[in-house]
Amino acid sequence: MIRINTAFDSGNIDVIEAQSCENIRLAIRKDHQSDFYQWFHYKLFAEIGEEHVMVIENAGQSAYPDGWKDYQALASYDRDTWFRVPTEYDGKQLTIRHTPEQESVYYAYFVPYSYERHLDLIQQAQQSVDCYHELLGETLDGRELNLLIIGEPSDDKNTIWVTARQHPGESMAEWLMEGFLGRLLDDEDGVARKLLDENVFYVVPNMNPDGSVRGHLRTNAVGTNLNREWAEPSLEKSPEVFYVLKRMQETGVDMFLDVHGDEALPYNFVAGCEGIPSYDERHKQLEETFKNALLAATPEFQDEYGYEKDEPGKANMTVACTAVGERFKCLSYTLEMPFKDNADLPDEDFGWSLTRSQRLGEDLLTAILAVSPILRKA
Amino acid sequence: MIRINTAFDSGNIDVIEAQSCENIRLAIRKDHQSDFYQWFHYKLFAEIGEEHVMVIENAGQSAYPDGWKDYQALASYDRDTWFRVPTEYDGKQLTIRHTPEQESVYYAYFVPYSYERHLDLIQQAQQSVDCYHELLGETLDGRELNLLIIGEPSDDKNTIWVTARQHPGESMAEWLMEGFLGRLLDDEDGVARKLLDENVFYVVPNMNPDGSVRGHLRTNAVGTNLNREWAEPSLEKSPEVFYVLKRMQETGVDMFLDVHGDEALPYNFVAGCEGIPSYDERHKQLEETFKNALLAATPEFQDEYGYEKDEPGKANMTVACTAVGERFKCLSYTLEMPFKDNADLPDEDFGWSLTRSQRLGEDLLTAILAVSPILRKA
Amino acid sequence: MIRINTAFDSGNIDVIEAQSCENIRLAIRKDHQSDFYQWFHYKLFAEIGEEHVMVIENAGQSAYPDGWKDYQALASYDRDTWFRVPTEYDGKQLTIRHTPEQESVYYAYFVPYSYERHLDLIQQAQQSVDCYHELLGETLDGRELNLLIIGEPSDDKNTIWVTARQHPGESMAEWLMEGFLGRLLDDEDGVARKLLDENVFYVVPNMNPDGSVRGHLRTNAVGTNLNREWAEPSLEKSPEVFYVLKRMQETGVDMFLDVHGDEALPYNFVAGCEGIPSYDERHKQLEETFKNALLAATPEFQDEYGYEKDEPGKANMTVACTAVGERFKCLSYTLEMPFKDNADLPDEDFGWSLTRSQRLGEDLLTAILAVSPILRKA
Amino acid sequence: MIRINTAFDSGNIDVIEAQSCENIRLAIRKDHQSDFYQWFHYKLFAEIGEEHVMVIENAGQSAYPDGWKDYQALASYDRDTWFRVPTEYDGKQLTIRHTPEQESVYYAYFVPYSYERHLDLIQQAQQSVDCYHELLGETLDGRELNLLIIGEPSDDKNTIWVTARQHPGESMAEWLMEGFLGRLLDDEDGVARKLLDENVFYVVPNMNPDGSVRGHLRTNAVGTNLNREWAEPSLEKSPEVFYVLKRMQETGVDMFLDVHGDEALPYNFVAGCEGIPSYDERHKQLEETFKNALLAATPEFQDEYGYEKDEPGKANMTVACTAVGERFKCLSYTLEMPFKDNADLPDEDFGWSLTRSQRLGEDLLTAILAVSPILRKA
Ligand SMILES: [Ca+2]
Ligand SMILES: [Ca+2]
Ligand SMILES: [Ca+2]
Ligand SMILES: [Ca+2]
Repeated sequence: MIRINTAFDSGNIDVIEAQSCENIRLAIRKDHQSDFYQWFHYKLFAEIGEEHVMVIENAGQSAYPDGWKDYQALASYDRDTWFRVPTEYDGKQLTIRHTPEQESVYYAYFVPYSYERHLDLIQQAQQSVDCYHELLGETLDGRELNLLIIGEPSDDKNTIWVTARQHPGESMAEWLMEGFLGRLLDDEDGVARKLLDENVFYVVPNMNPDGSVRGHLRTNAVGTNLNREWAEPSLEKSPEVFYVLKRMQETGVDMFLDVHGDEALPYNFVAGCEGIPSYDERHKQLEETFKNALLAATPEFQDEYGYEKDEPGKANMTVACTAVGERFKCLSYTLEMPFKDNADLPDEDFGWSLTRSQRLGEDLLTAILAVSPILRKA
Repeated sequence: MIRINTAFDSGNIDVIEAQSCENIRLAIRKDHQSDFYQWFHYKLFAEIGEEHVMVIENAGQSAYPDGWKDYQALASYDRDTWFRVPTEYDGKQLTIRHTPEQESVYYAYFVPYSYERHLDLIQQAQQSVDCYHELLGETLDGRELNLLIIGEPSDDKNTIWVTARQHPGESMAEWLMEGFLGRLLDDEDGVARKLLDENVFYVVPNMNPDGSVRGHLRTNAVGTNLNREWAEPSLEKSPEVFYVLKRMQETGVDMFLDVHGDEALPYNFVAGCEGIPSYDERHKQLEETFKNALLAATPEFQDEYGYEKDEPGKANMTVACTAVGERFKCLSYTLEMPFKDNADLPDEDFGWSLTRSQRLGEDLLTAILAVSPILRKA
Repeated sequence: MIRINTAFDSGNIDVIEAQSCENIRLAIRKDHQSDFYQWFHYKLFAEIGEEHVMVIENAGQSAYPDGWKDYQALASYDRDTWFRVPTEYDGKQLTIRHTPEQESVYYAYFVPYSYERHLDLIQQAQQSVDCYHELLGETLDGRELNLLIIGEPSDDKNTIWVTARQHPGESMAEWLMEGFLGRLLDDEDGVARKLLDENVFYVVPNMNPDGSVRGHLRTNAVGTNLNREWAEPSLEKSPEVFYVLKRMQETGVDMFLDVHGDEALPYNFVAGCEGIPSYDERHKQLEETFKNALLAATPEFQDEYGYEKDEPGKANMTVACTAVGERFKCLSYTLEMPFKDNADLPDEDFGWSLTRSQRLGEDLLTAILAVSPILRKA
Repeated sequence: MIRINTAFDSGNIDVIEAQSCENIRLAIRKDHQSDFYQWFHYKLFAEIGEEHVMVIENAGQSAYPDGWKDYQALASYDRDTWFRVPTEYDGKQLTIRHTPEQESVYYAYFVPYSYERHLDLIQQAQQSVDCYHELLGETLDGRELNLLIIGEPSDDKNTIWVTARQHPGESMAEWLMEGFLGRLLDDEDGVARKLLDENVFYVVPNMNPDGSVRGHLRTNAVGTNLNREWAEPSLEKSPEVFYVLKRMQETGVDMFLDVHGDEALPYNFVAGCEGIPSYDERHKQLEETFKNALLAATPEFQDEYGYEKDEPGKANMTVACTAVGERFKCLSYTLEMPFKDNADLPDEDFGWSLTRSQRLGEDLLTAILAVSPILRKA
């Protein structure tokens, strides 16, 4: 008998009908108090050896319908290895076809990153003498907004902030942070050791734990898109941004990275501050230095495909990247990873993966090291 | 600044006052729709190097006040290694004293076993060709009630049921199941291979996932003590028992083990069926065979200390062990592990631990192998 | 092009001819200064996808021709997973047939245990506060004869000696020791903790490192069969036995186990002291207690098949088991494991394996615990 | 009682006197049929808690006396974690002082890399579908000279050769290869995947297994310094070079790296082909591109300190780097790592380590990717 369950961390699907393998009809739930939806994550109890045709009926009205083009859904038997399964989009419905080899299977929009794993990540980082763990505040659901401070603070050092997963459905952002932190806290890694001589890192691996646990795509517990709150965050609607911005004002910011996933583009890319009022040659040089170093560090990154550039002075200043870039006159980038694959190095079996996200996190350190000497002087 | 958070799997504590390290006043929350309470689990953001005095004010009115005598609370920095910290009980309040060496610490009544880990355990077991994973039904909170069937079913084989964690705060019961399953599914283990020649196992590693996630001591989502529901379980109050008993009736039962933790006694022991109507010499022989084999397998088990024996015919027949023992005329035991330590082999640093629980689960297989040939014939 | 190499730890084969896959003709080298041979271990550079027919021409004149009946050779691509490959014996020649899936393959008589791994094992044991590492002396090739003393020596405690691999080709004996030591040094194992309250262990995991490295079957660097030297060991011919016996005289012996492999019998079994002059009821009771406990602990052990019993007073007193049993009037057993498989629990793919050897080593502790209280009193 | 043993892979020391902890007098053995010596590796059976003063009396006449200046010897209890211990050089004798906390300790010139580990490395690489394992030939002691071919050979691709450990005492060279191979065979690493699109790698992780096992510093089984044999290698004196050069002639070479350790300089650096007859602008550009990319990839590399440059046309053409650079007109570098530490990123506890060597091997791939597009065109 076909059964579907979602009562776990980041579970999200509604069953419309599931009488037979060949006709399982599903719908993604909207984020709470919001119209956004696209993230899904469910466990299927299946008939071994039978093809299961799973149709997500409301795919066409989701937040990013373009995200479904050429998208292949992820599946896992053991919640550890996630592989791609044949998926089609006809402009309205998304159809996943899979013949399970075991009695139950998990399906998800991208590899899930649970809050339990988040808490493990935080405590593991805390073990390091180079890392101090601080509670910035609590979310609307009462969860922790955790900050990791890495390196001994000092006026001589650059202050680098990195945040991830404002949009909770972009789970690759926290996988990237896992790689980033793993390398930064590795005391036999030369890049990490050199970086900590010159910089202090303030890292928020998950900006939106409530949305993450709830299985949201884009918003927090009360339906707020955090990445439109940076002009005027509030304790009522966006405490996550409120607490981070308050702490940023205490520390200052010499560089900022905000990590995201993009539903549509099959590439890793950055979006910068060309549209903020204070953008100038210095800012441009910082951007170029960082980008070129990241291009040299890994072919997973590229600078050909990305968002259209903002016209001068036309940036949306409610977004983290631009708000922080302007307020602190610092290098400030949004980093985007694909849900699909990197079309420059496609992998048919796994697509863009948790491991590749972690590696990109490690490679970010090489690029930060390149720009570090000029963050203040340039 | 002292901060306490419980917004995670099995978190449970209320903060009455936490202005200073030396006077942190706490209270355990009751199980939802119930008066039981004793399980606690919280994360403290601490001052490194300062002694923190944490007083649980309502300890004296908890379900098992005797449980606090000689009890030492568990603490962990990394959520992996859990060690005991100095704890005192004055008949009313429980006082935990600890000087954290890191910026945050978890404290718990026993080593927590999360629902995420439960789901991992299930999928890992499912990988085995010897194991079939079945959804028995859903709980009142919508979670999975998972069954693992191990061994190829056959009329010639004994049917052995093992259930754990009807009382969700007895997390050692699921740690034991992890050891039990790990060995049973190990195809280079002689005991396991021999057992699967003669027996089929029906294993429910967590009978009460709702209570587990909610941080309950003894009850499910609506305050039902599942281990008093075996006479007449209902879908409204105790679907967990309802589904298991229904499935037992389909399979029959030749042996039953129900795994628990005992708040008060510092020993591992079993409680059997001497008080059920049908108890006879055959039943007694089965009990003796099993018990003696377990005594031979591990000094962690003993048969000197335990519950008072029921008088003939005076057993409480709403309890799993007796209800199943009577209905199926089979060997049926409740297995109890300590929250404190095994006083026969005390370990000052760790007390009774997750590892020792796992080992006891492994050793159960040796005892089952001893009794297996006579489960039907005797 | 077919190539064969043996220039590594325990390598042993001579190539007679290797022009084509279908006709590879080999011979096992004799132990140095001895006529014994049976152990083989070589690496083949193969044609992927072609059947390789490897004929050991001198199998029929080896030390134990009966060992080749129903024997299946071991193969490994990664030197970690060893599986059985089709092998036939016609009374004269042993023929191994295998179609390699990779470019090189190792073949061996049993899973090799290298001296490098031995040194790692020793240092790992040394880490434990319960273990003291002592150099008994040096072998004729200059290698270490290592002793591990486990538990705090005390007059109140039993002294238990365990030796392994007097016959170096019986590598399963050291795999068993790895399991034995791993459990004995595990401070969360109840059996181990209880054992160390009452006993001190003197363990020699490899009695014959020279023969082991040289790829010998039965003898040391100068062709001595150590297990015929216990009446009068000498520094010239058998320093390994000389040093151990000398140390035994200092410590006394309350129990002795000497671990071996048997080429012919497909069973685990023990051979005892029924033929020594001082054998009596007490000795018999010790043997029975130990044997019965081991039978209860694991179905890998049995007592139906084994060597013919010695007639009273007719034991060969040059053998370790009998020599020690007589000299110290103590429980003394030779433990034999199969090269082939345990016919009671056959495993077609792997046969008797390194893992099963380790497990048996772990289970020995349970049996020792059963006999421990009567080692002196009985 | 103090005892010292060296009868294991790469063991090397002679004991002159070892009566008391405070006066242990040692001498390093010369390479067989050679006057070179500097590598040492021995195991000490020590008095726990006593300072042991170990004097290497013949340090001053070793191959590179400058190597002892500011050198700190390595020690390990478990043969896994190697740490530095206080060491002094007075121009004649090297004095190591250490107070062991355990009963035996290993000391070595650098972290040893055994032939058993080499064989494991080879078989592990062989598992990959991208890797083909080939036996180039046998050494004078009969060991394997192993080649790993990584990537599908094709005329369109560059042919890149990497060799390591011509000088067997430079064990960091094989640790580097372990990192290099691990990354190159990782199919979720973008740099590795991109590299294999354009290049085929021919890797010899250990050019001198005989010298390695024998505990030599610089020569093979018959005392030949392989890195002076590239003009005219012979099967009698230098079969290792003979076989590699022969295979290079079959494949051609577009890039060559030969990995070494330097006794004296506390830096990672390269030595190139500026002194070979055919050196030109193209060659120089290749060198600069590679070097700059490696500088960007890791601060463990630098280009300030190194060997004096050869004058034009004055290179020693018997050396691998120059001989191959000239013969194949290709980018050809010797890579040197320190025995001591990288003075740019000093680590008091561990110095230059196996992990840092592995990381440098990983980072080499980033630098090769940078130069790969111009290896032929430039
Ligand atoms: Ca810390
Ligand atoms: Ca299964
Ligand atoms: Ca020790
Ligand atoms: Ca291969």
